[in-house]
Amino acid sequence: MTENRIKIVEKILDANDRLANENRRRLDAAAIYSINLMASPGAGKTSFILSTINALLSEDIQIGVIEGDTAPVTIDSDKINAAGMPAVQVNTGGECHMDAVMVENALDQLPLTNLDLVVVENVGNLICPAAFNLGTHSNVLIASVPEGDDKPYKYPNIYRGLDVLIINKIDLLPYIDFDMEYFQKGVEMLNPGLKTFAVSCKTDEGLDDWIDWLRSRLPNR
Amino acid sequence: MTENRIKIVEKILDANDRLANENRRRLDAAAIYSINLMASPGAGKTSFILSTINALLSEDIQIGVIEGDTAPVTIDSDKINAAGMPAVQVNTGGECHMDAVMVENALDQLPLTNLDLVVVENVGNLICPAAFNLGTHSNVLIASVPEGDDKPYKYPNIYRGLDVLIINKIDLLPYIDFDMEYFQKGVEMLNPGLKTFAVSCKTDEGLDDWIDWLRSRLPNR
Repeated sequence: MTENRIKIVEKILDANDRLANENRRRLDAAAIYSINLMASPGAGKTSFILSTINALLSEDIQIGVIEGDTAPVTIDSDKINAAGMPAVQVNTGGECHMDAVMVENALDQLPLTNLDLVVVENVGNLICPAAFNLGTHSNVLIASVPEGDDKPYKYPNIYRGLDVLIINKIDLLPYIDFDMEYFQKGVEMLNPGLKTFAVSCKTDEGLDDWIDWLRSRLPNR
Repeated sequence: MTENRIKIVEKILDANDRLANENRRRLDAAAIYSINLMASPGAGKTSFILSTINALLSEDIQIGVIEGDTAPVTIDSDKINAAGMPAVQVNTGGECHMDAVMVENALDQLPLTNLDLVVVENVGNLICPAAFNLGTHSNVLIASVPEGDDKPYKYPNIYRGLDVLIINKIDLLPYIDFDMEYFQKGVEMLNPGLKTFAVSCKTDEGLDDWIDWLRSRLPNR
């Protein structure tokens, strides 16, 4: 990158960090736990949110969702609304990641005083979202079995910044060459001791442990 | 984007286009057909290239591969070399796409006079690669069945610029909810009449048609 370009990128990231801090203060003031949910396209982010909503439904835990997409669609926010939770759809206008301004604007449209948890479903991308702090409490990545076992080696930056890793679609393990040991060795190298849950949103396998962990993070539970 | 930022992005894209034109002249002069192969992480780009190499092996068609990754790995170029073809590994240094300079430098390291085809395996990403012309003859996207049927709706820009679409991992169709009609309706809206091949690199289903199409593009065949 040229020096000019580097300066501009640094300025953008500084401004983003300031706004991210404001988002965090706002979420803390409302006693809301929040998650930046990242993944490749089609790793199952929306299905995972829906499974989480369903698992917590009987406990009256309220979950607001911010859906980031590069195009003006409402496919995912419609699904969240149909599950009875408030969702805000954000069109990034072709941008490859969510940023703190988009989250700030979306928070304006959520009923914060009623919520226990906010999930930001980031744009499907294993690279760009890693550079943008949104102000959320944790970075969660969904790695999907069909993507293959070499992703930590090829996309190390996103793995380094994670608080939680979800390995999804484990129901497909019998049909796919996926070496779990090789995958986890790559993860351990980048982010030692990373909290990891292996799940299937199709069969619900492994979801209980994730829900227990998540419940323990909610300030009012 | 601020006005300053827009100007800088435009300058970068202009410079990229000029270099892309040079890459194309160089490939044409060597009578090489070339492909910019794009996909989500783990859609099967390397497996697809390996299947293509194997299918053309008996015809003595020489294929050079440029492997783009965001990190200093040689996982994919090692696989291509093991299949007997020359490969250049490019570390984008965290960048989310290949650009024309990276391809120019990689072409310097390939034995162009011996090659019939050059495949650039782009970084796994459905957004950023769409904006960067590499100088190749065609843009090919691999969509993978486990990614889900809504991807054309969510990542329209990359579909608009395609010359060929590969639907990969069709062997997994029995185990996944994937509505082919809904998927293809989305594609048709963005890119009417797009040349499409449905394949499985695991069972080799559908690969013959792709190989016939590809062979018809090679200048010296």
